Amino acid sequence: MKVYVIGIGLIGGSMALDIKALQPNSTIFGIDANEKHLQEAIDLGVIDLAGKIEDLASADFVIVSVPVDVAMVVLPTVLDAIGDDTIVFEVGSTKMPICEAVANHPKRRNFIATHPIAGTEFSGPSAAIHGLFEGKTNIICEVEKTAFKLQEKALELFRDLGMRIRYMEPKSHDKHIAYVSHLSHISSFMLGKTVINKEKHEQDIFDMAGSGFESTVRLAKSSPAMWTPIFKQNRKQVIKTLEEYISNLTQFKDLLINEDYNAIFEEMESVNRIKEILNGMKK
Amino acid sequence: MKVYVIGIGLIGGSMALDIKALQPNSTIFGIDANEKHLQEAIDLGVIDLAGKIEDLASADFVIVSVPVDVAMVVLPTVLDAIGDDTIVFEVGSTKMPICEAVANHPKRRNFIATHPIAGTEFSGPSAAIHGLFEGKTNIICEVEKTAFKLQEKALELFRDLGMRIRYMEPKSHDKHIAYVSHLSHISSFMLGKTVINKEKHEQDIFDMAGSGFESTVRLAKSSPAMWTPIFKQNRKQVIKTLEEYISNLTQFKDLLINEDYNAIFEEMESVNRIKEILNGMKK
Repeated sequence: MKVYVIGIGLIGGSMALDIKALQPNSTIFGIDANEKHLQEAIDLGVIDLAGKIEDLASADFVIVSVPVDVAMVVLPTVLDAIGDDTIVFEVGSTKMPICEAVANHPKRRNFIATHPIAGTEFSGPSAAIHGLFEGKTNIICEVEKTAFKLQEKALELFRDLGMRIRYMEPKSHDKHIAYVSHLSHISSFMLGKTVINKEKHEQDIFDMAGSGFESTVRLAKSSPAMWTPIFKQNRKQVIKTLEEYISNLTQFKDLLINEDYNAIFEEMESVNRIKEILNGMKK
Repeated sequence: MKVYVIGIGLIGGSMALDIKALQPNSTIFGIDANEKHLQEAIDLGVIDLAGKIEDLASADFVIVSVPVDVAMVVLPTVLDAIGDDTIVFEVGSTKMPICEAVANHPKRRNFIATHPIAGTEFSGPSAAIHGLFEGKTNIICEVEKTAFKLQEKALELFRDLGMRIRYMEPKSHDKHIAYVSHLSHISSFMLGKTVINKEKHEQDIFDMAGSGFESTVRLAKSSPAMWTPIFKQNRKQVIKTLEEYISNLTQFKDLLINEDYNAIFEEMESVNRIKEILNGMKK
């Protein structure tokens, strides 16, 4: 089996590691605009060899795992180059612009739009880890637009990686993911900014930070090159969630200004049910 | 050695467990307004016996680990009841109101104001764990107001628990802790609220949540009974940090509205140095 991974970072690299472990006879080719990353991926054993777009005709799988703005440009070129039995999938955090970009491509039926809800705050080939997708959700959009035989091939791989599948329209995906992923990243970045700005004048503030702070700012380590185009592509939904979040924070602040501690207690108590929701996530 | 723990939850209970492990011959008495918690603490082996305020005269250590509003009321009563060689310490997340509440007490020199920067999002006796304080920071306020001999006794215990000590004025403590702890909690609670409100109409939204969301909303599981009085006591500082946070979020939203993606990239890139800061925390 020939697998091409375009963009050898956290997601593409982790898929490469798992596929190689599942199918030791497969050959994993890597394609990356960053020559250093490509060499690093080979040195780390994340991929077997460097590949070329011109060779995609013989590929079984092509995994496009690049920032979502790059995916818009790369995907049509990839589809132009593949063979009739190649299945291409893309793993980015926005789905509507990607699906639109390939909607009228003659090889649309060789493409499957996915979003594996898996990751860490790290990036690059050295961030690739085994088992990243085990027990995670993979959201698949517009499955009906993919050729049935190729759907089956992709789904078998996702199952082998340990993922559960959810089908969704690209528009719903982008709307919902703004709440449960994109907003969390902005919340974390801006929390980091607020504290860093303070710390400029107060060097020892971080001596006082505990695991709670660390947990809420963890996502502020994420890659701006990956996240800027996500926010750009999902701009309207992200603005909407930010407006709601800012409004909730402002309301909480007003309760504090007005010293309405009963309401503050009730606010927190009603959000406490996030416990059960998060427990449900782990099932 | 006789140790009294007033309020057997996450912090008091975890201290009890560690002290018993360090000094197996000590007796750990528990005092708690919640009878169920008291019995649970005995059943779990977190404490040895139920104690009484009237018996504090013979105590070596009294640990007051109750919500900060309760601490204001309980501390003077505790100081009234203790013996000359008893050292009392309180572990809450605000220090100025507590220090003021005992400032003129005749037994002020038997008290040491502390804030161990340690915890989890859980509460109650079942949340008590061994080793919670290992490698953590303990902030001590107004150390000069504690009798030297009793300071030594307390510091020896904190060292045995594995904590490093930082001395700070109560006012600085409350100002800084608003940034690195109190704000994180509100950010997390309001993020949870924003997503829960959305989810009322969109049941499957949480199917899409990954570890990033989980990390940013973890603190929204925290106890409202513990956190409401913290926000009340540190109201001015918390309002200030919230204003700065809301202003940063609004500015980010405006960059999105104006489609200034270079500025968005730069915002995130400049916050990325939180990586080094968080790594520094682990040292």
